[in-house]
Amino acid sequence: MALDIFVLTLFPQMFTGVFGESMMKRAFGSGAANIEYVDFRQYATDKHHTVDDTPFGGGAGMLLKPEPLFAAMDDIERRYGHIDPPVGRVILLSPQGRRFTQDVAREYAACDRLTFLCGHYEGFDDRVRQHLVTEELSLGDFVMTGGEVAAMAVIEAVVRLLPGVLGNAESLADESHSNGLLEYPQYTRPASFRGMDVPQTLLSGNHQLIAKWRERHALYRTWRERPDLLAQVPLSQEQQEWLERFERGDFSEIDLA
Amino acid sequence: MALDIFVLTLFPQMFTGVFGESMMKRAFGSGAANIEYVDFRQYATDKHHTVDDTPFGGGAGMLLKPEPLFAAMDDIERRYGHIDPPVGRVILLSPQGRRFTQDVAREYAACDRLTFLCGHYEGFDDRVRQHLVTEELSLGDFVMTGGEVAAMAVIEAVVRLLPGVLGNAESLADESHSNGLLEYPQYTRPASFRGMDVPQTLLSGNHQLIAKWRERHALYRTWRERPDLLAQVPLSQEQQEWLERFERGDFSEIDLA
Repeated sequence: MALDIFVLTLFPQMFTGVFGESMMKRAFGSGAANIEYVDFRQYATDKHHTVDDTPFGGGAGMLLKPEPLFAAMDDIERRYGHIDPPVGRVILLSPQGRRFTQDVAREYAACDRLTFLCGHYEGFDDRVRQHLVTEELSLGDFVMTGGEVAAMAVIEAVVRLLPGVLGNAESLADESHSNGLLEYPQYTRPASFRGMDVPQTLLSGNHQLIAKWRERHALYRTWRERPDLLAQVPLSQEQQEWLERFERGDFSEIDLA
Repeated sequence: MALDIFVLTLFPQMFTGVFGESMMKRAFGSGAANIEYVDFRQYATDKHHTVDDTPFGGGAGMLLKPEPLFAAMDDIERRYGHIDPPVGRVILLSPQGRRFTQDVAREYAACDRLTFLCGHYEGFDDRVRQHLVTEELSLGDFVMTGGEVAAMAVIEAVVRLLPGVLGNAESLADESHSNGLLEYPQYTRPASFRGMDVPQTLLSGNHQLIAKWRERHALYRTWRERPDLLAQVPLSQEQQEWLERFERGDFSEIDLA
C-alpha cells in the first residue's frame, strides 16, 4: 500500500522542483508514495483569501487563522475517505517539536498517511496545534523562516525507506553505516591527481589487505571525529588494540593522506 | 558586504523553486546575499560528462570523481578572485559532520563566502574531503539521499540572519524565543470556532493580566514539553512557585484547552 503524503503550504511550488528530480521523482512515479500539495489559501473564504490575522492580546507578527487549515483538512478527508486514525498523523514542523531522527523516519515510513503543516514566518492559532495537529516535529536547534524545507527533509528521509524506492547499489551503500562506525575513506580514478595519490593498499588487488585497511580506517575516522559512537559498538580484541595505539599517538598503520 | 554563496550540485533546478519564493527571493534580490548554483557536471571533460566512477578496492555504489569538483572550485576562484582563506569555507553536507545549530548559523552569517558541496546517492572520492572541504556539516541523525535539501536548510537559516533580510515584525517575533522558554499559545480571530474558544483573558483588553497569562503559559508549555530548557533559564520567585504547582498537579491557573 502506498504512503499518501499531504503537504499544507502557502508555497506548493517550492516542493515541485525538489521532488521532480531523481529518486523522489521515481518514488512518486512508481506508486510507492503519492504526494499532494494543498495550498490552504484556497480554503480562505473572504474575497482577499486572507490566511493570517493579528494575535488577540496584542504582539508583533501575524498568525495563521484556524479556518482555512481546518477546511483544508476536512476536504482531504472528504476526498480520500477516513482512515484510522481519521486523518492519520498530522505533523507540524516547529522548533518546539520532538527531534527528527532515523527512528522517527522508520516510524513514519510504516504509516498509511502523513500530513505536514508548513507555516511561513507566522505562528499558528493555537487551536490548530491543539485540535488538528497530532505531533510537533523539529529538524534541530536552528531557526528557519518556514516549515517547507524542514518538511522536504523529513519527506525525503521517509520516502527513501519505502519498499522498492532505493536501487540495490544504494541500499548496499547505506548498509555500510550499519556497523555503527563512520565510513572508511573511498577513492576512485585517477589513482594520482594533482599530486594526491590513492593509498597503495587500495590499488593492490589484495582483498584481505583491503578489508583490513578499511576496517582500520573506519575505526580511525570514528575515533578522530565521533568518539562518542565507539561506546555503542562491540569492538574486537584487534580493534581495541588499534584504538590503544591511536590513544598513544601511534598512527603507523594509518595513511594520513 | 554581501555574503556570496556557491552551491556545487548536479541538480541546480532543485534550488531555484525553493529560493525563488518569499523571504529568500527578497534576500537574494536585495543584495544581502548572492547565490550561484554550479553544476559540476559541466566540468567533466570526457564526452559523456562523467562525474562518478567505481571505488578502488571494490564495493557497492559509485563515487563522485575528484576532477570535476576541483575544476569547478578553480573556476569559482578564477571568476571571483581570491579571498582569505582562498575559497572561504567549503562545506560538505554529510551525516558524519558536526551538527548544524543556530550558533553555526550565526558563524556562517558573518562569512564573506560559503561554498556547499552536495552529493547525491554516492559518496565522494576522499581527496575531495581531505583537500577541498574545510568542514563537514550534518543536519541531524537521519539519512537523506543527497545533500541538496540539507544545504537549503542551512542556507535559509543563515540568510535570514543577514542584516536587512527580515522585516521588523519578523525580527520581533523571533525575539520571543530569546528568553529561553517555549512560546506561549497565541490566538487570532474568530474568538469562537467550531466550539473551540480563545481563552477569555486574551480577549479582556487588560494588558497586565494578558502579560501574566502569557508568562505562565510559556512556563507551563516548557515544563510539559521541554523541561530540559528550564535548567538553563533564570527563573523568578513567582515562576518557581508556578513550577512547584505544576509538579503537584495543580493547573488551576492554566487554561487546559
